[in-house]
Amino acid sequence: MERKRNISMAVIRRLPKYYRYLSEFMKNDVDRISSKELSEKIGFTASQIRQDLNCFGDFGQQGYGYNVKDLYREISSILGLDQEYNTVIVGAGNIGQAIANYTDFDKLGFKLNAIFDVNPKLTGLKIRDVEIQDIDNLQQFLKYNQVNLGVICVPRESAQRVCDILIENGVKGIWNFAPVDLHAEEDIKIENVHLSDSLLTLTYLLNGR
Amino acid sequence: MERKRNISMAVIRRLPKYYRYLSEFMKNDVDRISSKELSEKIGFTASQIRQDLNCFGDFGQQGYGYNVKDLYREISSILGLDQEYNTVIVGAGNIGQAIANYTDFDKLGFKLNAIFDVNPKLTGLKIRDVEIQDIDNLQQFLKYNQVNLGVICVPRESAQRVCDILIENGVKGIWNFAPVDLHAEEDIKIENVHLSDSLLTLTYLLNGR
Repeated sequence: MERKRNISMAVIRRLPKYYRYLSEFMKNDVDRISSKELSEKIGFTASQIRQDLNCFGDFGQQGYGYNVKDLYREISSILGLDQEYNTVIVGAGNIGQAIANYTDFDKLGFKLNAIFDVNPKLTGLKIRDVEIQDIDNLQQFLKYNQVNLGVICVPRESAQRVCDILIENGVKGIWNFAPVDLHAEEDIKIENVHLSDSLLTLTYLLNGR
Repeated sequence: MERKRNISMAVIRRLPKYYRYLSEFMKNDVDRISSKELSEKIGFTASQIRQDLNCFGDFGQQGYGYNVKDLYREISSILGLDQEYNTVIVGAGNIGQAIANYTDFDKLGFKLNAIFDVNPKLTGLKIRDVEIQDIDNLQQFLKYNQVNLGVICVPRESAQRVCDILIENGVKGIWNFAPVDLHAEEDIKIENVHLSDSLLTLTYLLNGR
């Protein structure tokens, strides 16, 4: 299938939302849906939806709408969900444990291979059958296991160092929860979840400006 | 101070990042900074920075740059951080506990007033001196305590119901961690942290499309 190049981040960030809604339609045995109906559910305009999906190919049919199962499959594949991701979590504090316990990720194809922490009180404990290892094992582990994704849940001071170790050992994707912007070469993909940035956006909006 | 109306969400979402960097400069006793230096640190272009900050007033001085302390104070106030936010967390699972334990929020002026959960094994336990209460107490609690912010950390199925209860009882700001889009009147501000959306953006990027 032909895809346009240079798809904007705004479009890309809407894709997971399409995926979420299509999953729901699948669960509810919806076979097809018009861009108008999809628009009412998802909250984007019908024209926005057509434009977004056109970036990735020729979905939908005039007068028929979208075949839910086909579109779901296609978006899964665009999002790279037809693959498995070997994942390590570094930092087994509250956020790290929350991520490790988040069963939704299994369903999306993420395989939690290992968890690392610096705290000896945590090492040896298990979260959903995955043992928390001493952080000193991280490098060794990465050498002998092909890991695609590293989740960084350490304090801000250690985040860049952890990021460097992950990248030096072949990890290409970083999901960063530390409240700091990490530096890496361009071929490394970093996605930040800056919780306090999100909260401050909310307080801004709350103050009616 | 005069502020332009209709400031775009893109600008608003950059503000917390300015705030984060200015906090760091304050810690490191930096008194003033040029838009060029700020640009190198923060990764936005100098012209972007001037444009962003101009939305909120006349900061910075030709040839001098920005006074760090003044700009920090001003952005704190724009973000509404000169106020205190009474906060409740609904859902004391992994994410709820992680949020409750996140001490950074105290520093930003968030006061955790109560935590609620449906699980009797959790009620009565304390997180940082705040007791987890039965969710049946939520409505009553909101009636007798002025709460500004509700953090929703319940499963997707209960999220809208919890949101409705919070709003009916005067909560104006919702920080939503449930993987679902909540519906509310326009005067209610909802900020979503959709973790799986963030992760799927990363897998998209990883697949080099």
